Amino acid sequence: MTIGEEVRRGSARAQVVAVRPEGSATRTDQLATEEPMEIRAGGARQDPVPVAVTMRTPGNDFELAAGFLFTEGLVGPADVDRISYCEVDGDQEFNVVTVRTRSDVDVSRARRFYATSSCGICGKASLDQVEVRCAPLGPGPVVARSVISSLPDALAERQRVFATTGGLHAAGLFHPSGELKAVREDVGRHNAVDKLIGAAMLGRTLPLSDSVLMVSGRVSFEILQKAAVAGIPIVCAVSAPSTLAVSAGERLGVTVVGFVRNGSFNVYSHAERVDVDA
Amino acid sequence: MTIGEEVRRGSARAQVVAVRPEGSATRTDQLATEEPMEIRAGGARQDPVPVAVTMRTPGNDFELAAGFLFTEGLVGPADVDRISYCEVDGDQEFNVVTVRTRSDVDVSRARRFYATSSCGICGKASLDQVEVRCAPLGPGPVVARSVISSLPDALAERQRVFATTGGLHAAGLFHPSGELKAVREDVGRHNAVDKLIGAAMLGRTLPLSDSVLMVSGRVSFEILQKAAVAGIPIVCAVSAPSTLAVSAGERLGVTVVGFVRNGSFNVYSHAERVDVDA
Repeated sequence: MTIGEEVRRGSARAQVVAVRPEGSATRTDQLATEEPMEIRAGGARQDPVPVAVTMRTPGNDFELAAGFLFTEGLVGPADVDRISYCEVDGDQEFNVVTVRTRSDVDVSRARRFYATSSCGICGKASLDQVEVRCAPLGPGPVVARSVISSLPDALAERQRVFATTGGLHAAGLFHPSGELKAVREDVGRHNAVDKLIGAAMLGRTLPLSDSVLMVSGRVSFEILQKAAVAGIPIVCAVSAPSTLAVSAGERLGVTVVGFVRNGSFNVYSHAERVDVDA
Repeated sequence: MTIGEEVRRGSARAQVVAVRPEGSATRTDQLATEEPMEIRAGGARQDPVPVAVTMRTPGNDFELAAGFLFTEGLVGPADVDRISYCEVDGDQEFNVVTVRTRSDVDVSRARRFYATSSCGICGKASLDQVEVRCAPLGPGPVVARSVISSLPDALAERQRVFATTGGLHAAGLFHPSGELKAVREDVGRHNAVDKLIGAAMLGRTLPLSDSVLMVSGRVSFEILQKAAVAGIPIVCAVSAPSTLAVSAGERLGVTVVGFVRNGSFNVYSHAERVDVDA
């Protein structure tokens, strides 16, 4: 395989041997780009510290860095001062992003993000950690059944890279009326959500109390947590939620909807936000 | 939703509102269990240190811990002495697993696993890191096209939990003849692979030079890396590989096969291990 010049974009060309029932042939295919990105953070009087390395699809990198730091509870929603790529000998290094904040970043908290030394870690403990950063959401909007059923097609229509590579997760932010606000894609499911939330953060539209999140895959605990921190009251997915995602949804006041397919879906928590007759 | 007594297993019952075109009703559904697990490691003369927290589906926890530490380069394939759950006041804490090794664990390396402070991180650097731990694989087995095409069905037949929850990734280890050796499932795609490799490690059947790995989802760089460290020469997936997975496959001598569906597939690297006429 030869990865061409497009490697800085969301996809790259590759030579593949395509094996089909009628025979095999060499042809060109598009692959989803995956590259590591290091996120660093620091206040005006601090040296930035490395907080995380994530495998991501290049594009919307500043949104990803901001969204990650916010949804993991490390920086406030309006605390970002400046975001830049790292410079080495005058050249920009596109796989290292530094976020400068107005307040100091709690480095001890950043370290805790990597590793917990508490022995009693369990689902309960994780949920408690989320609740420290995020009060349960208020009643919020009610969404019509017809709107929820329309979300997968609306997301797929806007998913640009998936159509060529088949290798990306998509996350879409919708108005409760079904109107699409934004779509982001990434090889990492969490990254697509962080990019969406980071975009809202940089655009000063947080909290996303009047929004519905639709994801192309499943709903893990981490997806649910990120949505709750951003104030998103309804999370919908093409596939299944996990036990911990549903428990967190119940406790944090988030409606969890799964298996949105062919006009059907399941509501796992806070069904009061779904109007099944509309 | 009420999560019942089965929560220690791979799935749990939940009450859901099932919304269908013909009407909505409350019914019982099965959800894939997701819980955090902390992995600790230490040699005979060391205090165990926390190395990682992973969100996983309970079951095969010791395999997961061993496989993770091995595929991340932190312990050798035959270095595990003892694996146990943490005990608190005499009760076992099932979400903390401690791996005791014969040699000391390089703690500085474990810390590096959390965060890299090098500025020049990029795809190239990551690949170099893998190659430190793992020489490129030798020529290895050749697999018939008919065998590759048979893998998704063989995997699906053995995927016990997915059938009820729709929420789990599966990874299967096959003989090049197509015979199934083992299947593991998890909410995390990497965890399913670590469980498989950890099982081989604990069963003393590493390296897996005469094996084909089949995964239910996509092939990321990390999946490819784990396979290479375990000596698996052929990695097949129902969905797409990423650019970095294919680059790593090329350099480490691993055959990457994607989109294995309906008798067709694409070979992205080291196509010499696929017999397209058989």
